[in-house]
Amino acid sequence: MSFAIEGFAPTVDDIRGARERLLPVIRSLPLLRTAHTDRDLRLKAESLQPMGSFKVRAGVTAAERAARQGATRLVTASAGNFAQGLVFGARVNGLQVDVHVPDTAARSKLDAIRMLGARLIEHPFDEWWAIMQSREVSGTPGEEPGVFVHPVADEPVLLGNSTIGLEIGEEWPDVDVVIAPFGGGGLSVGIATALRALGSSAQVVTSEVETSAALAAALEAGAPVAIDRRTSFVDGIGSTRVLDGMWPLIKRSISRSIVTTVDECADAVRELALTHKLIVEGAAASAYAAANRPEFAGARIAVVLSGSNIDRGVLAEILGTVEEQ
Amino acid sequence: MSFAIEGFAPTVDDIRGARERLLPVIRSLPLLRTAHTDRDLRLKAESLQPMGSFKVRAGVTAAERAARQGATRLVTASAGNFAQGLVFGARVNGLQVDVHVPDTAARSKLDAIRMLGARLIEHPFDEWWAIMQSREVSGTPGEEPGVFVHPVADEPVLLGNSTIGLEIGEEWPDVDVVIAPFGGGGLSVGIATALRALGSSAQVVTSEVETSAALAAALEAGAPVAIDRRTSFVDGIGSTRVLDGMWPLIKRSISRSIVTTVDECADAVRELALTHKLIVEGAAASAYAAANRPEFAGARIAVVLSGSNIDRGVLAEILGTVEEQ
Repeated sequence: MSFAIEGFAPTVDDIRGARERLLPVIRSLPLLRTAHTDRDLRLKAESLQPMGSFKVRAGVTAAERAARQGATRLVTASAGNFAQGLVFGARVNGLQVDVHVPDTAARSKLDAIRMLGARLIEHPFDEWWAIMQSREVSGTPGEEPGVFVHPVADEPVLLGNSTIGLEIGEEWPDVDVVIAPFGGGGLSVGIATALRALGSSAQVVTSEVETSAALAAALEAGAPVAIDRRTSFVDGIGSTRVLDGMWPLIKRSISRSIVTTVDECADAVRELALTHKLIVEGAAASAYAAANRPEFAGARIAVVLSGSNIDRGVLAEILGTVEEQ
Repeated sequence: MSFAIEGFAPTVDDIRGARERLLPVIRSLPLLRTAHTDRDLRLKAESLQPMGSFKVRAGVTAAERAARQGATRLVTASAGNFAQGLVFGARVNGLQVDVHVPDTAARSKLDAIRMLGARLIEHPFDEWWAIMQSREVSGTPGEEPGVFVHPVADEPVLLGNSTIGLEIGEEWPDVDVVIAPFGGGGLSVGIATALRALGSSAQVVTSEVETSAALAAALEAGAPVAIDRRTSFVDGIGSTRVLDGMWPLIKRSISRSIVTTVDECADAVRELALTHKLIVEGAAASAYAAANRPEFAGARIAVVLSGSNIDRGVLAEILGTVEEQ
C-alpha cells in the first residue's frame, strides 16, 4: 500500500510551482509573532484558509493536477476537513466530486460537504475503512470512473501540504522547530520534505492528544501498532494506528511526537482566542500546547495552526470556562 | 480646540514613511477575501494587531515621534484601546506613560494598562472629560512634564491611522467603499486622508450603533449635536457628541454613517467567528454588519475590523446563542 509516495522527494522548484498555482485561492499570511517571554513562537494560521483548514492546499493541488490530466470527476474517502478542501479545489477547477463517507460521520459535516456541491455516498464504517485502505470504489454505471484522491497518502496531497513548509522555511530561515498536529502524517511529512528541500535543519515535531496518540506508540514500538482511541473534543487528529503506507515517510521525517492532554488543548483553544484572537480547532490547539512546554524554552518555534472547524457549542463552553489560577 | 489638525493633509510619502516605521511592530496582513455571493467584500483584520486593535499604529507613531524629539514621558487621557496602543508604542521606544482615566472605567481595562507598565491617574468623570477637552494635566512636582497625546485629535495619531487607508488603497486600487466604525473619527478621517492622497475615489462610510450614533445625528443637523448615549456590548464606539475639533476633518471626509442595531452587531460577531474564524469586538462587527446591508450589493467593499477586545463572557454568550432562522 505505498501508492508511489514512498519516494516522495519534490525539488524546491516543484514545491514553488505548487505554491504558485495555489496563490489565487489561498490566503498568504505571514507568520504571526507572539509576545512570548522565553521563546520566539510564531503562528502559521492555516486556520484562516478557505474552508477553515490547511487541507485546501492539498485539495486544490490534487484537483488542479487531475483537471490538467483531463479528469472530470474526483473520488475521495473522507468526512472531514479534507473532503471540504478537495471539493473547494474541484469547484475552482470545474470538477465533480464523489465523497465516500462512513455512516458514523457527523451530520453537520456531511451537510457542509453536500452544500459545496459534492455527491455523498454513505457506507457502513468497515466498508468505508476498506475504501480508505484499497482506494477501490465501485463506480456508477454509465459514468466515467473518477480519479481517486487519498486524504493523506497521495502525491499531490503531500505536495500541497509541503507548500506550508516552504512558506515557513523561506520566511524564517532560522526556525529551529516546526510543530504540526499529527493525524495521518500528511501535514508533517509535507512540511519536513519542504524544509529538507530548502536545506533547512529545522526539526519537525508533531503533536497528538492523549486520547489517540498512534504516532507516539509507533515511534516507541518502532513500527505502527494498534492503539485504543477514545473520543474527545480534539476530533481532527488521531487514529487507531499509523497508516502502514505512510510509515516509511513518517519515520524519516519525524523523530518526536508530543502527547498533549485534552485539558491542555482546551486551555490552548482559550488562549489562542483570548490572547491571539484566533479561533482554532482542537488539533491546532494541541500544536500550540506542545510549543508551550518548558522544553522549548529559548527555541525559535513555528506552530502550524492546522484548522478552525470547531463545534460552536464546544467553543462557547471553552470560552465561558474561567481557567483555574 | 483644533490642535493644528484642521489642515491635516500628509502626502503619500509622509504616510509611507509612517508605515515604514511601523513595519517592525505591526502585522502586515493582506485583505482577507470572503466568499460573499453578491459583493466583493474584503476584511482588513486590524483585530489581529498587537494589543488587539488598530490603535497600535497611532500609539507607535506618536511615541516614535515624541522619542525622536527628545521626550521621555507621554501623557494621555483614555481608558480603552488607545491607551494600550500608546503604552505599547512607548515601550517599544523606551518612554514612560501617564494614563489619565475616569474612575468609571472597567477595572479589567485599567489592570491591562497597568500591567503594560503605565502609571494610572484616576479622576472623577467630569474632571477626566475636561482633560480630554483641554489637554491640560497638572504634572508631578520634580518631573519633566510629558508630551500630551490625544487619542483622536492629534496629528501623529491621524497619521498612524492613515497607514490603514494607504495599505487598503495600495493593495486594492479598485475598492469602491471603505467602511470603518466611528468612535471619535480618527480612524475614518485617517483612512480618507490616505485614500485622497493616493488619488483614490473610494468612498469612506462609517458605521455606528443605534445606542450612540453621534455622527449620524451631526450629519443630519449639519453640526455636532448632543445625543443620549445608552450602553450596549458595543462599547468601543459612540459618544454623546462629535468632537468639535474633529468636525471640519470629519465633514470633508465622510458623507454617510450607517446606524446598525445591537442585534446586527451581535450577529456579525457570531458570523465573523464561525464563518471567518476571527474574533472581533462590537465596534468592528458594526462595520461588517453595515457592509452586508442590501444597498452595497455589487460593490467592492473593504471592511475595517478595528479591534478584538471583546469581553470573554459576552463572546461566549453570543457564540452560544443559535441565531433564529
